[in-house]
Amino acid sequence: MSPAPRKTVIIGGGAAGLGAAGGVKAADPSADVVVYTEYEDVAYSPCGIPYVHGGEIPDFERLFLAGKQAYVDAGIDVHYETAVTAVDTAAHTVTVDGEGTVPYDTLIIATGWNYADPGVPGGDLEGLYFVKNIRKAMEWDKVISETKSAVVVEAGPLGLEMVTALAHRGVETHLIDPNPYALAMMADPDIMAPVEESWRELGAHLHFNTTLEAFVGNGSGKVRAVATSGGEIPADLVVVATHKVPNNALAQAAGLKIGSTGGIIVDERMKTSAPDVWAAGDAVEIPHGLTRTPLQGLTGSHAYAQGKTAGTNAGGGDRAYRAVYVPWATPAGKWVIGGASFGETTATALGIPYVLAVAEGISRARYYPGVQKVKIKLLAEPGTLRLIGAQMIGGGEGIKERADFLAQAIRFGMTLHDLATMENVYSPAIGALNEPIVLAATNGLTAGK
Amino acid sequence: MSPAPRKTVIIGGGAAGLGAAGGVKAADPSADVVVYTEYEDVAYSPCGIPYVHGGEIPDFERLFLAGKQAYVDAGIDVHYETAVTAVDTAAHTVTVDGEGTVPYDTLIIATGWNYADPGVPGGDLEGLYFVKNIRKAMEWDKVISETKSAVVVEAGPLGLEMVTALAHRGVETHLIDPNPYALAMMADPDIMAPVEESWRELGAHLHFNTTLEAFVGNGSGKVRAVATSGGEIPADLVVVATHKVPNNALAQAAGLKIGSTGGIIVDERMKTSAPDVWAAGDAVEIPHGLTRTPLQGLTGSHAYAQGKTAGTNAGGGDRAYRAVYVPWATPAGKWVIGGASFGETTATALGIPYVLAVAEGISRARYYPGVQKVKIKLLAEPGTLRLIGAQMIGGGEGIKERADFLAQAIRFGMTLHDLATMENVYSPAIGALNEPIVLAATNGLTAGK
Repeated sequence: MSPAPRKTVIIGGGAAGLGAAGGVKAADPSADVVVYTEYEDVAYSPCGIPYVHGGEIPDFERLFLAGKQAYVDAGIDVHYETAVTAVDTAAHTVTVDGEGTVPYDTLIIATGWNYADPGVPGGDLEGLYFVKNIRKAMEWDKVISETKSAVVVEAGPLGLEMVTALAHRGVETHLIDPNPYALAMMADPDIMAPVEESWRELGAHLHFNTTLEAFVGNGSGKVRAVATSGGEIPADLVVVATHKVPNNALAQAAGLKIGSTGGIIVDERMKTSAPDVWAAGDAVEIPHGLTRTPLQGLTGSHAYAQGKTAGTNAGGGDRAYRAVYVPWATPAGKWVIGGASFGETTATALGIPYVLAVAEGISRARYYPGVQKVKIKLLAEPGTLRLIGAQMIGGGEGIKERADFLAQAIRFGMTLHDLATMENVYSPAIGALNEPIVLAATNGLTAGK
Repeated sequence: MSPAPRKTVIIGGGAAGLGAAGGVKAADPSADVVVYTEYEDVAYSPCGIPYVHGGEIPDFERLFLAGKQAYVDAGIDVHYETAVTAVDTAAHTVTVDGEGTVPYDTLIIATGWNYADPGVPGGDLEGLYFVKNIRKAMEWDKVISETKSAVVVEAGPLGLEMVTALAHRGVETHLIDPNPYALAMMADPDIMAPVEESWRELGAHLHFNTTLEAFVGNGSGKVRAVATSGGEIPADLVVVATHKVPNNALAQAAGLKIGSTGGIIVDERMKTSAPDVWAAGDAVEIPHGLTRTPLQGLTGSHAYAQGKTAGTNAGGGDRAYRAVYVPWATPAGKWVIGGASFGETTATALGIPYVLAVAEGISRARYYPGVQKVKIKLLAEPGTLRLIGAQMIGGGEGIKERADFLAQAIRFGMTLHDLATMENVYSPAIGALNEPIVLAATNGLTAGK
């Protein structure tokens, strides 16, 4: 008789939870793997939702990655619309709505994130849209079709995408944000200025240094305006894109160690402070590779890789997840922006000194049709000139790939010298004589003299 | 009285020569800098010529980077249509047509390359086009308009571009090459198979394993066909795209040390074996960073950087040029191909063992319009799993930037582990959940077990 298979319970059906399920099965094909999700679906891309709203992607159906049968076939038992209400780490059990007490050998918490509570009156009005669930997004898309005027609350990554999407849909779109410019928690003002300009060209109204005070109802339970520090803005629809906070309620109640960001603390193997309990995704915090300061709320790609790590280890394998250097990029207005680790704003806020290396280059030969500007800012540690961050804006060509590269360059301690002497492809239709990264690094060396 | 300015003579007005001129002036603004070129122009992009022939770039005028006055303003004295016929390194003089004996304090040889002599009868016929000079290209472009049938000799980088260009222009185009597939000196057959397929879709006729035997005249001094090992192919026009050989006649006559490739031997500062003589560009050979084997015939971007190094040092500055890892990429048919350092074919030819890591990924989210396949092959050293090469094919998005990155990854000794754990941007319109490089590296780790 073979031994009884080990049972892994996974709480959460997002990128981290499904990455974890796959990781467990890869490490231990005989494992029982049960995934609990509160939603009707797993395996779709929530990141695609703003682009369906904006009309770039023709329908929501395309966002589904795999049918439910694919998980059945892979031996992963997904329980849909099923909430887990408690974890008992001593007893190795979870409490599940409609299923009672369920035992586990190993547990993976991938409960994700929630929008930060805006903390103002009117939060229960109709017409407040928190972009997250695909089924709800399908309904909201019909609402958008009939919306004349919308307010997007906060200019974070999702707020950026939704401003662009609503403007593309012809909605009169207002953005409110308490900071002096958009994406201020990540990006530098000189990177964002052209983005803001292009939103204005799309007809969007930008209200910075503006605090949300209330959602204002029409007397029948539906929003009709947003009250702000700068006055009332009429709105049929409000996209509440406040920042992400870790959904750590279950973990906290179970006594797991929680970090300064509110994320669950995990080690390199994504193990929590409790025996046989792992965690992954937006519910955890991860150290930054340069400063070791904890970060929370990274991307779906990070969540997936963390989940895979947690699952591999829970399944008896051995896999480490390293500190992060955070490449990022996103379309914004008519531009694509991106970067890695620190910009000037974040470095300054953290008291990190830097040498700046800046250039405006091009994506193809100057004379080749479709050539785009690529502005690159590199930040380096004074003295060593080791790269500590980068920010970019361009028409789109190569921004994502350069962000990936620069994050890896930071991880490997590359200096401005190393980047100034890197070779680059020169082929008129696809690359310029001088790579913009090389130009920026070269300028930084001269400036440092 | 200030000391007399030092005089630098530069032979060659291409990317290396002009890079050198700028390098001298940056290091020593008071230097006398004289550039001799046999051509009517400097500062245009010869790399753009095939794309004007193909119709992607509307006219030749766009290929000019700067007017002649720009060099006058920069204090660089360009002598056009002026041949240098001898160098006397002991006397520190050059012999110049129409100017006699001209002294120099420092000399930079940037004489570039020639097409390898095809070595068959009929080389003096009309209708043989050697793509190089922009003035001649303007005349040949009119010839192309009236050409019904063309043969391109050799499937090297320029041959690739010209096959695509001629096919785009509606010319019946034949490619002949002695190797079993296109670009065989650099690329692997599985990378080139889709390219060849797309040429066939464009109507081009590909003749591999086929040797050129003669250019056949019509009796009035004009080409009418090409004789090959596979029979005669009628042609109004023959593009002779044989491989580049270093134009080292002057250097050799002057007694400079020449390497095994025929390129001038230089040290890290681009200094030749003769006192006060530097060299740069396609006339020199440069060691490969991994094997230290000399390479000859790199790109305009390499030539420019080498020229800048030579010029800086000739001008009294201090700048090193490192061994190369050779990122490359080019459009080919409907694809873009690229890589860095070794592919399977070149590694095998050099007796270098390797572990292979392959994946087919995508350039954007699977569901985002415009998504393209990106196939990546990584070659790593067995045991250490250090990257030693890469090859890629895709629709175009991010190929050049990945080639740059992978060449730098080779230089920095990154392993498949390092690449499998790299972070990547995930944003539906510009990057997929899983970066193709990460997928390939991950597959390589599994395959290596």
